[in-house]
Parts: sequence; C-alpha cells; structure tokens
Amino acid sequence: MKILAVLYSDPKEGMPSQYPLKKLPELTSYPDGSSLPSPQSIDFTPGELLGSVSGELGLRKFLESAGHTLVVTSDKDGPSSTAARELEDADIVISQPFWPFYLTESLMRKAKNLKLAITAGIGSDHVDLGAAIKHSIDVVEVTWSNSISVSEHVVMMILALVRDYIHQHDIVKQGGWDIADAVARSYDLEGMHVGVLGAGRIGLSVLRRLKPFETHLHYFDQHRLPESIETELGLNYHDELISMLAACDVVSINCPLHPATENLFTTELIDQMKPGAYLINTARGKICNREAIAKALESGQLSGYAGDVWFPQPAPANHIWRSMPHNGMTPHTSGTSLSAQARYAAGVREILECFLTGRAIREEYFIVKNGSLAGAGANAYTEGNTTEGAEQLAKDT
Amino acid sequence: MKILAVLYSDPKEGMPSQYPLKKLPELTSYPDGSSLPSPQSIDFTPGELLGSVSGELGLRKFLESAGHTLVVTSDKDGPSSTAARELEDADIVISQPFWPFYLTESLMRKAKNLKLAITAGIGSDHVDLGAAIKHSIDVVEVTWSNSISVSEHVVMMILALVRDYIHQHDIVKQGGWDIADAVARSYDLEGMHVGVLGAGRIGLSVLRRLKPFETHLHYFDQHRLPESIETELGLNYHDELISMLAACDVVSINCPLHPATENLFTTELIDQMKPGAYLINTARGKICNREAIAKALESGQLSGYAGDVWFPQPAPANHIWRSMPHNGMTPHTSGTSLSAQARYAAGVREILECFLTGRAIREEYFIVKNGSLAGAGANAYTEGNTTEGAEQLAKDT
Repeated sequence: MKILAVLYSDPKEGMPSQYPLKKLPELTSYPDGSSLPSPQSIDFTPGELLGSVSGELGLRKFLESAGHTLVVTSDKDGPSSTAARELEDADIVISQPFWPFYLTESLMRKAKNLKLAITAGIGSDHVDLGAAIKHSIDVVEVTWSNSISVSEHVVMMILALVRDYIHQHDIVKQGGWDIADAVARSYDLEGMHVGVLGAGRIGLSVLRRLKPFETHLHYFDQHRLPESIETELGLNYHDELISMLAACDVVSINCPLHPATENLFTTELIDQMKPGAYLINTARGKICNREAIAKALESGQLSGYAGDVWFPQPAPANHIWRSMPHNGMTPHTSGTSLSAQARYAAGVREILECFLTGRAIREEYFIVKNGSLAGAGANAYTEGNTTEGAEQLAKDT
Repeated sequence: MKILAVLYSDPKEGMPSQYPLKKLPELTSYPDGSSLPSPQSIDFTPGELLGSVSGELGLRKFLESAGHTLVVTSDKDGPSSTAARELEDADIVISQPFWPFYLTESLMRKAKNLKLAITAGIGSDHVDLGAAIKHSIDVVEVTWSNSISVSEHVVMMILALVRDYIHQHDIVKQGGWDIADAVARSYDLEGMHVGVLGAGRIGLSVLRRLKPFETHLHYFDQHRLPESIETELGLNYHDELISMLAACDVVSINCPLHPATENLFTTELIDQMKPGAYLINTARGKICNREAIAKALESGQLSGYAGDVWFPQPAPANHIWRSMPHNGMTPHTSGTSLSAQARYAAGVREILECFLTGRAIREEYFIVKNGSLAGAGANAYTEGNTTEGAEQLAKDT
C-alpha cells in the first residue's frame, strides 16, 4: 500500500542533535483509565522531533520492511502541491491539525484508492467529513493523545493573559524596569469566573487544573457532565452559551469546529461577554471571527486573546492576530509538544499495524466509519464541511 | 508623625485613565482562613494602580486629615537620594520589595525618629534585620497579601518554560510559522517531577495548584508539613536539598533570602540538579548566582530559568539575565498585580491605623518586634544582613 504523510517542515536549522530532556516522563494511562497507544513496537525514541518531515512519525522502517511505500511531504497547498499529486494513488493519508492538509471533496474524488485518513493528533475538521462519508473513507484520530497537552497550554495562556506576562517579559528584554507599566494590566486569577465552552476531554482537563486556583468554574456543553464531577469541581452549568459568557471573566473555547461553531464569536456575541473579559481559543481559528477579535481588543471589550489556532494555517505573515494588542498567540503548537508527538506517533503506528494486518482499530479513534459518523465523531461533529475558504483566504491576505 | 513611602515610579505614559476590569473579584479570606486586611476604611478603589508614586497606596487623605505628614518618592538609591534624606526625620518608612529601598545600618543610624519599617508586600530582606533589632525599629509586612499572586506567577512560569511559550510567541510576532522550531524544546508538564524549595505560604500554594497537573510533587523545607497535607497532595519530602534537586525536572525557589540562602545556587549546586532541569525563582535574586545561572543555560544543564527577582533592583540594563537563552524573566511584578496592590495597600492602612492610635498590630505581620525576630520572622529569617552590595553592584554593571 501507499501511505502519504503530510507533515510540517523541518526546523530551519536542521533536526536537533540533542534535546533539553534526556528522557520523557513515563505515563501509565490516560486520565479516564484508557490505555496509552500500544503498538507492537516503535522505531523512535520518545522525545525526538517526530512530527516534521525528517521525523516521519518514526514510520519508515516499519512500513518499508512490510513492503509498503511511505511518501512524506510538507508541500500541501493547492492542486499542484506534492501532497495533492501524491494523494491520487495513495491508500492512506496521514495529516496533522498543526499543518493541515485540507482534504476537500475535489481531492477525494481524484483519490480512487483512498480508504483511510488518519489525523496524527486530534481534530479532523481539515477533512470534509461529509465528503469522506460519501466516498467511504474512514477517518480516525489519536483520541486523548494530546488532550492534556492542549489543556496545559490553555491554563498557561489564561495565567499569561490575566497576569500580562508577555508584556512584562518584553519590558525586561528591552532593558527596562517599569514596574508600574508592567502591572497596570496585571491581575490575579484568584476569585475570577472562568468558563469553558465544551467540557469534553480538553475542557474538563482545563477545569480540573483550574480547581485549586480558587476561581469560580463554569461550563457550557450540549452534554451535561455527571453530577459527581459537577460537585467535585464545583461547576456552574449553563444551558445557554450567552448565560455563561455574561458570567465569566475568562472564557476558553474547547469545542470542535463544525458548521454550528464556525464563526461563532462575532462582534455580536463578544458584546454579550463581560466587559474586559479574556478569551482563549485552542480549538480552531475559524470559530472566532478574525476582525471581531481584533476590534474587541482595540475597544477594550476583550482585555486579552490567546490561542494557537488560526485560519488558514500557516497563518499569512500579515494576519491581524499576530499584531493586535494584548494577544498571547503561538503557532499551532499546543497539541504537538515533544510529549504529544511521542503519543500520536505511537497511536498512528498502532492504527497502521491494525489496518495493514486486518485487525480492528480502536473504536474510540473513529470519527467516520463505514460511511457514517462514529465514536468520537458522532458526539462532537456534524456531517458538514469546514474546509472551505482555505485557499481563497490564503490568497486574500 | 512623618511617614515616608518609597514607591515605584509612575507609568511612563501617566497613570491609567481606565483599567481592563471594571471590578476586582471579591475574596472572602486567605487560604488558611485568616481574615483579609481590615482597615476601618479605605480611600481607593480596589483595582487602581496604588503601588506607584501617584498611587500613594491610597494613604494621603487618611494621613493628612489626622495631622500627619506623608512624603512619597521613588528616588531611593544612594546616600543623597530623596529617600535617604527624608528618612532622617521620618517616624515610619514604607517600602516595597519590587522597588527596594535598601535600609542599611548607616541609614538607620541617621534616622533617629524611626520606629517602624513597613513592607508593602512580603519579603523584608531589603531591611538589615540585625540593624533593625539593634536600633529598636519594628519591621512588619503584610503577610499573605501577595502570596497567592506569587504562586500563580510560579505556575505560569513553570508552564511557560516547559512548553517554551515565549519562544513560540516570538515566532508568530515575527511573522513566522515554524512549528518544528517552535516545538523542538516544548514538553508537557504531565508526569514531570516538580519540587519547591520552601513550602511556606507561597511554596505550598504552588504545590496545591500543581496537584491536578498529574506531576510528582516534592518539597524541601526545614519545617515538615503536617502529614495530612503530605497525603492529600501526595508530596515527597526531602530532608536534604541535594536529594530533591537530583529528583526533579522543575524546581521552584520559594524561601526567603537570608544569609543561609544567599548565593545558594552556585554552579556546584546546579550541577547536582537533573540535567536539563528548569529553575524558577520568585523568591529573591541573590539566592541564585548570576553568572552560574547564565552558564548553566548556555551548557544545557538548565533548560530554562524564569523569575521576577533580580539583584540589584532595578536590574541594570545589561544584566545578563535579560539576554541569556531560554529565560522567561519579568520585572519584579509577581507580588504587585493590581489585585495584590489592593490587599497590601489595605494592609498598610490597617497597620498605620493601629500604630497611630496605639492599637496592636496583628501579630502575624511582625518580622522584628521589640528588638528581636518575631512571628513570621522567627520562622523564616535569621538576624543577619542581606542588603550588602546593592550600591556596589549597581556601579559595577
């Protein structure tokens, strides 16, 4: 079989010859007790850079020794890209949210052999799920592999926005010592009202991590959490988003992108938030209206915005979120720490081992299975398409 | 009486006309159940900038209407500074760790009327405690007022170092999108071993906040915590610092500066740490050897260093901690968020109300009382002097 992996580019200065840590911490299971990825073996050292082209997710030896073909590229945009061309006779495509190869229906139509689309990570909105269903392409992701990674990024960004960390760091970097300037926008998180939109694996992990900060915790989700969890964490449930937004000083978006959440945070919605609130988005860039966010930061309706998701990705050099005031943005990194890479590379290996030998892939990995939404997908996604506009927007900006 | 307050300078662009939040969150008590500062009244709005010269800690109206004199200055360095001159006939001096007016014995000797030195915040190492004892000057600080503020800063910095946040933010700010460069030093905190040196109010608050991050928690302190807390948080106690350093991926310094902790982190000690560990210091700059820290970051023995404490303060423009690799420094801000300012301004007001009307100051505020170490001071300090070298070092660098 032919496996195409679309991965992000290597570091500008080449692959690292050494890493900060000699060894990754070892984990025993995911928070819900489910087991970590368990391939029969791996050909990489956890902690290495695996998500970029030279890293190859540690798959080449395994695939080639079993007689398969692995093609790896980072050239992904447009119909004449390497990825688009190589997809035409690929059986399996592996892609990543961080460097999204937008799997549109027109690409699927030409990919006659394509049977399986693997997301190395979590979040398969770069795949036109409706088209995958129509073309009988199964879609799987490595559930849990980077949920904790993202939740840590969220808590970090909440603290950084509320305390105004980036601004303070810039002051010392520039040789200054202006305490008053440095703290004129700096608060403690303690006592604030913090809410998550979406209390799935990531959202709930965020709430758990915030519990000892003595904040008031809120959530909005279509699915209500068990009462035991609400009691344990002291959660305030809202059955309407507007109600949560009006109550919170800090809001973190942790729901998937699908047609119902696309362009959800418009000026109209942001104006329903508490004046001066902070907004964190590590879900998907398209959930927030780009101009509305920048405008709200200018007016003070938002005191800060941070996140690692953009649209499109890579973000154009002049994307306004790079330069708007009080932003704490990063590239799309939260789910691709070296720790997360080790897990999703092992998960992709597990999926491939199963698929190539006819064994069943874990049920919880499926987003689309045998022509319909399944497992994680049925809860979190709708059958629509959120891949539109990527190429157009890239040209516009 | 004459009260001298030495406060940090106003913002370069003048005092803020508005603040991000309309209202500070309201707290009911400190974590141990002790009451928040409770002055009879206050003349400021919590959330305003109070710690700088124009903020005057909100004290002028109160003091002048009672017939006292308030002098406020930020000019604090050297024997001919405004602070040094005004101290000579002051009865009470108020100073801050963030903008330390180093109360040396030579200054105290000339200050014949001086009875009380108030630290607006926590940490009175800028006062020569031995000399204060000798000259019968009581030293008080506003216990708890900013402990939680500092503990939040610590957790923020731990996450930022381990995930490599500052570097990632710089990439997007500069127009880039280099995921591989951005994550080549980025880890999850989950599973790491994290230790605090000093498990007092701040250190224990750090440990509590880290609990749900599923790290292994360690501490070293002269005073062992109650078994119930060790069990609740799953703490590993070390009766030797070296033992904790050898076990931890991340170490946070949360002990006071006194002669036994001054220059503690030398190259020799840092070499006892786990290779590639991260070090956070929000205690006092002098606890770490300046050059040893920079050297360890260059060699990779440390993967990151963050903190908000320097020596001297303000740090000279060419202080190596501003430019060393993988630093996440801020100015001395962690304990002077707008939230913390509201509490320590109220605490200073409470102390002054007591002192000026002959009522007892809260016992827990005393560091030096009636010529000996007292209360918080007896546990955390020794009678020595750590104020030396400030003026010399400022000249050298």
